[in-house]
Amino acid sequence: SSDITPITATLFPGDGIGPEIAESVKQVFRTAEVPVDWEEHYVGTEIDPRTQSFLTWESLESVRRNKVGLKGPMATPIGKGHRSLNLTLRKELNLYANVRPCYSLPGYKTRYDDVNLITIRENTEGEYSGLEHQVVRGVVESLKIITRQASLRVAEYAFHYAKTHGRERVSAIHKANIMQKTDGLFLKCCREVAEKYPEITYEEVVIDNCCMMLVKNPAAFDVLVMPNLYGDIISDLCAGLIGGLGLTPSCNIGEGGIALAEAVHGSAPDIAGKNLANPTALLLSSVTMLRHLELHDKADRIQNAILSTIAEGKYRTADLGGSSTTSDFTKAICDHL
Amino acid sequence: SSDITPITATLFPGDGIGPEIAESVKQVFRTAEVPVDWEEHYVGTEIDPRTQSFLTWESLESVRRNKVGLKGPMATPIGKGHRSLNLTLRKELNLYANVRPCYSLPGYKTRYDDVNLITIRENTEGEYSGLEHQVVRGVVESLKIITRQASLRVAEYAFHYAKTHGRERVSAIHKANIMQKTDGLFLKCCREVAEKYPEITYEEVVIDNCCMMLVKNPAAFDVLVMPNLYGDIISDLCAGLIGGLGLTPSCNIGEGGIALAEAVHGSAPDIAGKNLANPTALLLSSVTMLRHLELHDKADRIQNAILSTIAEGKYRTADLGGSSTTSDFTKAICDHL
Ligand SMILES: CC(C)[C@H](C(=O)O)[C@@H](O)C(=O)O
Ligand SMILES: CC(C)[C@H](C(=O)O)[C@@H](O)C(=O)O
Repeated sequence: SSDITPITATLFPGDGIGPEIAESVKQVFRTAEVPVDWEEHYVGTEIDPRTQSFLTWESLESVRRNKVGLKGPMATPIGKGHRSLNLTLRKELNLYANVRPCYSLPGYKTRYDDVNLITIRENTEGEYSGLEHQVVRGVVESLKIITRQASLRVAEYAFHYAKTHGRERVSAIHKANIMQKTDGLFLKCCREVAEKYPEITYEEVVIDNCCMMLVKNPAAFDVLVMPNLYGDIISDLCAGLIGGLGLTPSCNIGEGGIALAEAVHGSAPDIAGKNLANPTALLLSSVTMLRHLELHDKADRIQNAILSTIAEGKYRTADLGGSSTTSDFTKAICDHL
Repeated sequence: SSDITPITATLFPGDGIGPEIAESVKQVFRTAEVPVDWEEHYVGTEIDPRTQSFLTWESLESVRRNKVGLKGPMATPIGKGHRSLNLTLRKELNLYANVRPCYSLPGYKTRYDDVNLITIRENTEGEYSGLEHQVVRGVVESLKIITRQASLRVAEYAFHYAKTHGRERVSAIHKANIMQKTDGLFLKCCREVAEKYPEITYEEVVIDNCCMMLVKNPAAFDVLVMPNLYGDIISDLCAGLIGGLGLTPSCNIGEGGIALAEAVHGSAPDIAGKNLANPTALLLSSVTMLRHLELHDKADRIQNAILSTIAEGKYRTADLGGSSTTSDFTKAICDHL
């Protein structure tokens, strides 16, 4: 397939185990002959000696230009006077939707074997506004902001996603019985969009009830769309159902058609550089990137190779109870391709 | 035990199935010879023809005077221009902590058999301030309020509870990595209180991670204390782990030593009056009321009778997969006493 013009994609390997698991993705893409050229930039907690920066303008421009990228974990610098890099990227690139497919992995046993849902999280506002202040000593406030624009945008994305991915139902998650104006506006926007998609069933579920239902019977859900904080909570809950953040892909959708896939787990500094990290979340994230590029054949092949390797159970990293190295596990996936 | 001066406790049977399940509690208390006299008031969604009110001043005064009570479910009247009765009671009686013991019920199978934790929720502020407004068209805000006073009060209650109930660890649940000022103040207060309880281990867990851990391994938790909205979410999630709100007791602690136990499930209007309701949550809530009154013998006897009846499995209501009526199930519990 060397006659296909390669697509240039940005790669931010990130901190800690980031470079190792990014290496795993590169190797799998090479083996699967994915027509992607990587444009690699360092974005992370340390000041890069080459650029004297932890986040260069060129890194952001690279994503804006390529419109597609993959990012590894980035540690949140504590007490360095700036916000988390993850939040900075969301803001700078206007990454308005965070999409996480979450499905039980065949052969990897948890208490659940029937999870198959997608969480779609509004990624820019809500409790994440950063607007907080002390009113008087001992009384602090933070502002939750909900806008019509951001709510419509993420609702539109969710319904479009459902339609184009053969999904049947969208559930909007909220607490409008308490926050009638903010969550009420979010629901109003979801309802407006729902009317344009009569083929998709629409329902509204209060967040506390949603969490109860998720742990009792996750099969009751299909696509979930929700404001920022609820999305943060529910997407991690769902990851827990199938084994944790080390196994769940994630992709951020930004204005102008940007897709920045990412592993949402931590940078695991304790095992960094030791060839022990599990690259699954980043690999599965790279698959969501390929789907965004409509390279469905490659996406299917790679996803199957990853899932088969995990299902066979012969090569698993330590976090999944095995003793394989990152490179052994990666090689096993490549052998499946 | 007729030589014991009876304690007067307020009873709000509530809406829907409320009266039936309250009857079950009364019967069990009579059989167990619990020295409690009930002072019953109607509080609910309908206007009581006798009082022309859905919530009389006398009802509130009754709880304030008796300092102990039990409440059934109350529906949230929609579009009648007033807040939920549950919230009204929390506010009027200053019910600052909601305590929910959550443990796997022997013999009632869910995906979890190792749950044994207590959620303690701040019950008066946070996102529940009710302060919301539209800034400009399409932009709405709601205010989350965290105060030092309410945070210290609930933290103090949590540590005291842990100490007096033989618990070893308190986990404060937060999102202070995003809401540094509000959740930061909550954590600061928890830390201050933790210092006074060196025998209790103290830890802090971010809410998203907490939800993931809860579904993976709930046995990792002991006592959890948290701001209002997180408590709303996590307490329902935990209820889901053991089977749902129909099985989980709850007790609200108010200023001046008030304890108002409550079933937190809905009023189930569809099955109201049909002798089909499961009284377990209200019964177990009445047990928390007895413990608050330090009637531990009675509490233990009743709790054992409830748990044994469920464990045996011969008498179970429809929601637990059985076909018993409310009165059969109640009689089975009484037979165990
Ligand atoms: C690290 C943290 C700021 C971030 C968030 O809260 O969004 C994380 O939990 C996530 O879900 O990406
Ligand atoms: C009914 C609703 C207002 C209430 C709440 O959000 O607190 C309920 O979910 C609860 O937990 O008691």
